[in-house]
Amino acid sequence: MNLAPLPASEIEPVLDAADLIDRMARAGRTAQRTLATMSSVARQAALEHAAAALRRTAPAILEANALDVASGEAAGLSGAMIDRLRLDPARIEAMAAGVAEVAALDDPVGRIIDETHRPNGMVLRRVRVPIGLIGIIYESRPNVTADAAALCVRSGNAVLLRGGSEAVHSNRAILAALAEGLAAGGVPAEVVQLVPTQDRAAVGAMLSASGLIDMIVPRGGKSLVARVQADARVPVLAHLDGINHTYVDRAADPAMARDIAFNAKLRRTGVCGSMETLLIDALFPDPHGLVEPLLEAGCELRGDARACAIDPRIKPADASDWDTEYLDAVLSVAVVDGLDAALAHIARHTSGHTDAIVTGDAAAAERFLSEVDSAIVMHNASSQFADGGEFGLGAEIGIATGRLHARGPVALEGLTTYKWLVLGTGQIRP
Amino acid sequence: MNLAPLPASEIEPVLDAADLIDRMARAGRTAQRTLATMSSVARQAALEHAAAALRRTAPAILEANALDVASGEAAGLSGAMIDRLRLDPARIEAMAAGVAEVAALDDPVGRIIDETHRPNGMVLRRVRVPIGLIGIIYESRPNVTADAAALCVRSGNAVLLRGGSEAVHSNRAILAALAEGLAAGGVPAEVVQLVPTQDRAAVGAMLSASGLIDMIVPRGGKSLVARVQADARVPVLAHLDGINHTYVDRAADPAMARDIAFNAKLRRTGVCGSMETLLIDALFPDPHGLVEPLLEAGCELRGDARACAIDPRIKPADASDWDTEYLDAVLSVAVVDGLDAALAHIARHTSGHTDAIVTGDAAAAERFLSEVDSAIVMHNASSQFADGGEFGLGAEIGIATGRLHARGPVALEGLTTYKWLVLGTGQIRP
Repeated sequence: MNLAPLPASEIEPVLDAADLIDRMARAGRTAQRTLATMSSVARQAALEHAAAALRRTAPAILEANALDVASGEAAGLSGAMIDRLRLDPARIEAMAAGVAEVAALDDPVGRIIDETHRPNGMVLRRVRVPIGLIGIIYESRPNVTADAAALCVRSGNAVLLRGGSEAVHSNRAILAALAEGLAAGGVPAEVVQLVPTQDRAAVGAMLSASGLIDMIVPRGGKSLVARVQADARVPVLAHLDGINHTYVDRAADPAMARDIAFNAKLRRTGVCGSMETLLIDALFPDPHGLVEPLLEAGCELRGDARACAIDPRIKPADASDWDTEYLDAVLSVAVVDGLDAALAHIARHTSGHTDAIVTGDAAAAERFLSEVDSAIVMHNASSQFADGGEFGLGAEIGIATGRLHARGPVALEGLTTYKWLVLGTGQIRP
Repeated sequence: MNLAPLPASEIEPVLDAADLIDRMARAGRTAQRTLATMSSVARQAALEHAAAALRRTAPAILEANALDVASGEAAGLSGAMIDRLRLDPARIEAMAAGVAEVAALDDPVGRIIDETHRPNGMVLRRVRVPIGLIGIIYESRPNVTADAAALCVRSGNAVLLRGGSEAVHSNRAILAALAEGLAAGGVPAEVVQLVPTQDRAAVGAMLSASGLIDMIVPRGGKSLVARVQADARVPVLAHLDGINHTYVDRAADPAMARDIAFNAKLRRTGVCGSMETLLIDALFPDPHGLVEPLLEAGCELRGDARACAIDPRIKPADASDWDTEYLDAVLSVAVVDGLDAALAHIARHTSGHTDAIVTGDAAAAERFLSEVDSAIVMHNASSQFADGGEFGLGAEIGIATGRLHARGPVALEGLTTYKWLVLGTGQIRP
């Protein structure tokens, strides 16, 4: 996040950070209880109002964004950061369309997970309920303000949004539009609140607000996620790394393996679902055909000794390569002695995000799917499919590599939990 | 836990606590991967062997237990604590039968949660998998050693068991029996490990072993649970309090309300599902008939001003009563102005465990079930049913009042998570 000091005029008087978060969280929790009693249709309509308000106030949002971009350029932010920060009419339209799309998604709240009839006549039913109050901590992209707010409201949750100081004017303008639309739909104002950016201690206060904030979702670079994971006392939904493996088995169709490997690495190198390590079975018949298109496309390959023997352009890997998420046109390659060795390599080095096998051998595929314990395990598909949209979930709040609550792409259902309803007719326990 | 020093002969040489837990956790995780590849039938058979071994080695377990009881008596443990500690042939038989019952429960591992077919032909499937390594921290009852181990093994998890020092000999003898049985069934020894009790820092090391231990379950008194919840960096499955409300609505059947209130408070006062606060609608026609049987049975009632007017034997409550879990024949009673006031009282004071409404008015019941956000919400039933066995789940690892992962009675399913399987035919992402 931007460490440059803000002009004094931007600094609102704030409470001590812990008091501030306490006050905002309590207000959010109270507002959430009202939101939770609204019908699904009413929450949907409120989000449609919010989408319309974003479209209507686009000029004001662009004006606010220009202030942030100018400050960012003056403060020497990188071109990539400025690009993430900058809005234009098309990006605002995409943001509004995203809010309208989330409004149209099926509502998970109230869905019955299961129902049991007990011998004494009691009926037990587990139903989905909102989690409560979600905290989102994010960096420069202002569209997260709208995306995250929409997902939380659709699933009946209140949200505390803590964006980066570099996007403060943009985020305020977007929130003002959302607030106007949500208010028109009868949603209490405190359902979506923006945490002031000038008090950097507010992030720490959010991370330790256990019992007040139910879940934190960090959205941003690895250092942000690492800090949130290290410091949070509140449950965190996140992934730190996507060190994703594709294992090309001896029984893989060579053309399919080549296409999947190329796509998994190079379709987009900067996404968390991109392949970072290619494991090639020593008995796979065409290893050169597998690496050739990658090398030709300019991808740097770093291999173990046997991989280096496939093509002289492959450079030797060092030990750290097997634990590196390049997010770039770089790939580590190892030749392994069959499925067992591949499974052992993956167990040791995976970050638990997405690992894939390419094989025509059903038994090998079954073992891989069963024994690899990552959030997403694939057979004969590109790891670049690791995405909520591609999974048919609509928008996603993030991808999680933790073991509890929700794993892989997390969308509306992951923003809910459940409660047990017990429907009796006067039963007492003997 | 027992603070009395152990005789020197009992002190094994141990590593630094963090190193010890690190070593044990890594061994447990490795063993869990082997366990996870065993079939459900094999895990079931191993638990049946363990149950048989418990029965066969009952004399050795009783002998070890006698040492603990003698040390406990010498150290001046309370009678209640000695009772929880003491084993007899019937208790060992119950423990063995419990292990055999868990063996017979349906295996959640591998169960398909849902399956989606994507337009590009990919099939997505969410399947249940074990969580990984569970840590159990518990006090005097040695049967927890067998119960918790059985539930973890049945659901494919490894477990680190950290019992109280007062039960060290009993726990070791029980573990030896379990280990013998599990080994006969092909389960690696490190799937169930007992953390040495003499190093009190081991508990702290377990609580901070995030990434190594996937979930901690404290089993014991409130101070143990509070400490675990305060200090853990690992997710905790627990409930601290059961401040459970029963609201008797104006439309309640008086006889049903009387029976439910009596049962909810007095069937057993020391269980977490017992009622601690009775809320009486000011328009309920027979408040005296409701409190009379409780008073007659010797229950102490502490009321607000309107409740005290129902019967002179009701003493005035003070502010702290509404937030107190008595776990005794004591009950706080308030008269409230209908459903809205009851909901407001509950929202403010519930611990999120089990709250109930008694009413014949379907609309009032529906609002109560919808708006009360506790783990268990009941209509016309006694809160004493808050129990995994009564819910038909078989044994339970605990009852959870947190909002994530699992809520209410948690049994085998709560010891699993899921992964996504993606079944392709060569799909690459455009």
